Amino acid sequence: MEYVETKFVTFCQPPNELVLKSGFKLGPITIAYETYGQLNKDKSNAILVFHALTGDAHAAGFHKDVKKPGWWDDMIGPGKAFDTNKYFIISSNVLGGCKGTTGPSSINPKTEKPYGLSFPMVTIEDMVAAQKLLVEYLGIKKLLCVAGGSMGGLQAIIWAVNYPDLMNSCILVATNTRHTAQQIALHEVARQAIMSDPDWQNGDYYGKSIPVRGLSLSRMIGHITYMSEQSMEEKFGRKLIGKEKLGYDFSHDFEVENYLKYRAGNFVQRFDANSYLYLSKTLDYFDLAADYNGDLTKAFASAKCSFLVISFTSDWLYPSYQSKQMVKALKANDLDVSDIEINSSYGHDAFLVEVEGQSKLISHYLARIEKQNTHGKR
Amino acid sequence: MEYVETKFVTFCQPPNELVLKSGFKLGPITIAYETYGQLNKDKSNAILVFHALTGDAHAAGFHKDVKKPGWWDDMIGPGKAFDTNKYFIISSNVLGGCKGTTGPSSINPKTEKPYGLSFPMVTIEDMVAAQKLLVEYLGIKKLLCVAGGSMGGLQAIIWAVNYPDLMNSCILVATNTRHTAQQIALHEVARQAIMSDPDWQNGDYYGKSIPVRGLSLSRMIGHITYMSEQSMEEKFGRKLIGKEKLGYDFSHDFEVENYLKYRAGNFVQRFDANSYLYLSKTLDYFDLAADYNGDLTKAFASAKCSFLVISFTSDWLYPSYQSKQMVKALKANDLDVSDIEINSSYGHDAFLVEVEGQSKLISHYLARIEKQNTHGKR
Repeated sequence: MEYVETKFVTFCQPPNELVLKSGFKLGPITIAYETYGQLNKDKSNAILVFHALTGDAHAAGFHKDVKKPGWWDDMIGPGKAFDTNKYFIISSNVLGGCKGTTGPSSINPKTEKPYGLSFPMVTIEDMVAAQKLLVEYLGIKKLLCVAGGSMGGLQAIIWAVNYPDLMNSCILVATNTRHTAQQIALHEVARQAIMSDPDWQNGDYYGKSIPVRGLSLSRMIGHITYMSEQSMEEKFGRKLIGKEKLGYDFSHDFEVENYLKYRAGNFVQRFDANSYLYLSKTLDYFDLAADYNGDLTKAFASAKCSFLVISFTSDWLYPSYQSKQMVKALKANDLDVSDIEINSSYGHDAFLVEVEGQSKLISHYLARIEKQNTHGKR
Repeated sequence: MEYVETKFVTFCQPPNELVLKSGFKLGPITIAYETYGQLNKDKSNAILVFHALTGDAHAAGFHKDVKKPGWWDDMIGPGKAFDTNKYFIISSNVLGGCKGTTGPSSINPKTEKPYGLSFPMVTIEDMVAAQKLLVEYLGIKKLLCVAGGSMGGLQAIIWAVNYPDLMNSCILVATNTRHTAQQIALHEVARQAIMSDPDWQNGDYYGKSIPVRGLSLSRMIGHITYMSEQSMEEKFGRKLIGKEKLGYDFSHDFEVENYLKYRAGNFVQRFDANSYLYLSKTLDYFDLAADYNGDLTKAFASAKCSFLVISFTSDWLYPSYQSKQMVKALKANDLDVSDIEINSSYGHDAFLVEVEGQSKLISHYLARIEKQNTHGKR
């Protein structure tokens, strides 16, 4: 078995820092990334994929001595939707993350201490600007496709809008163009949970106790929003845990309670609380049409590539009506758009678990894009 | 202006304690209650109303020196849905609450200290058993109606099923017959938020610092679930608070963030964290058909009265499909059932704010019940 490894590359050494949307300058910026498959001779088979809120660069394959594959391994690999026999897939950890790319837990070279809350706020535009440096570094002039779900979709949108000449196609899964009041509210509760944990210490907890309780609560809220009412009911219903009847006390009674605890327990071991704060804010700040008085058609006017837009019926975190608004705006710009709402009970998680339906759609779509690309060049 | 006052009555003096569903014996039990309107000569015009999770006995009218009326004042009063010119309305604080009825913040006479976590777990059945003592104490043999929304609806259901001869009718608003995995999960996050607050101190915080942070988080989560995505979007959208542009820091940017903070701030001043723990568990434990293998028709077999069932299209906390299942089971028992799903964007809050539609329905329904009742007696 061939293992994959995360690689690292550093850009923006002072005084050549990256100027963020906020005006703040950030550098150096290290990017953690992985690649799968082989880049072809004319470098025309590269696909850049983006992870969601708590993902990382490890999208596919296995790291040595780790049992679990990358987060999108169902979709990336030989013969899979993103077929590594054909395509060269690039995945990187986002700016502000905590898995190798510069973020609040990174050492600030000026102070030789972790940034903590002195890390600047990053936007989707900033994440994408950093990814562009990586793509240039890899010698790729034009991507065959940019693709992502959830927060990954926001990155794909900004690629398509800010660098319209740098890709042939864009795949958007379970995503949207602006965060609604409900989405902001859910994030705000998660942030308050972290920030009200005494161990958070205004973000200066590195090397001390981490804010386990607050981060756990954030993740529990998250998990409820990733599933649907139906999928929770089907998976757990009112099943009791290891007892015949209700306990009439405050120990756990129901399996769903234990599930939340278990998932939160895993999460706090792998994710940085400050990164959660920053990235949730990044999502809340996202509003593609903000500079266009809310006119989504104008906001997409610069885009040139082909689009595939996928949403899921039971996704209430990124409801499919948001995808439909996006599709309408793309079509109003005379762009090539394929869109589908997949019938699924899995809620927002569907973008990770509805593998079969998505695989067919994506592999056929990519084959078409590849063909058009080859024809276009002749 | 005539003010209303909360009255108090105490039952179950040892050794005559109330035997709870858990088997635990509880006594004495003080019940805080209010009444509105006049009991008629033959005591046939009494209506018992029930409050929701964080409500209290003060359903209507004004307390002296308090600007805000009772929580259902839009519906209870002269000429209103529950017309105090015609009916005698009784409202009491639930067992386990913190507004005058015995609950975890009450003094345990055996220890002369607040119960805290030594308070026994209470069920909807226990709440209703305590209310029955109050109704008997008031000399009422049969209620014209039992009525409630949300957790209040659960109490109305148990009245109708456990004491079928004691009412002519039952009004159920935005309620259900069992809590789903999602509802349990949302409550569990709220409980964990309270219990992970260091000030909670295993429930023994009375006279010390109260768990403000945990209780605030619980309420923030609650408020998101009480509204709908649409009502949050209409009320707040992405409106910024007192600033022209995003702050790029962790202060609040959006009005919805401030709203949650404001509502949570009010809540922690008026509600006891342990009561929140107990009552959320009471809700999670509720499963009407648990003893009937999930057969809702059998679970309602003892009911005799007429039913009015109201639900709201955008309520995702107590979705209307749950009301429809209930209606189906009631009809299968050949009961007189009127049901309506009101078109509303207000989410679960609709049961408190959709006054006009509900008022018409309820006043007509009660007039019919009253008429049948009078005819029946001739």
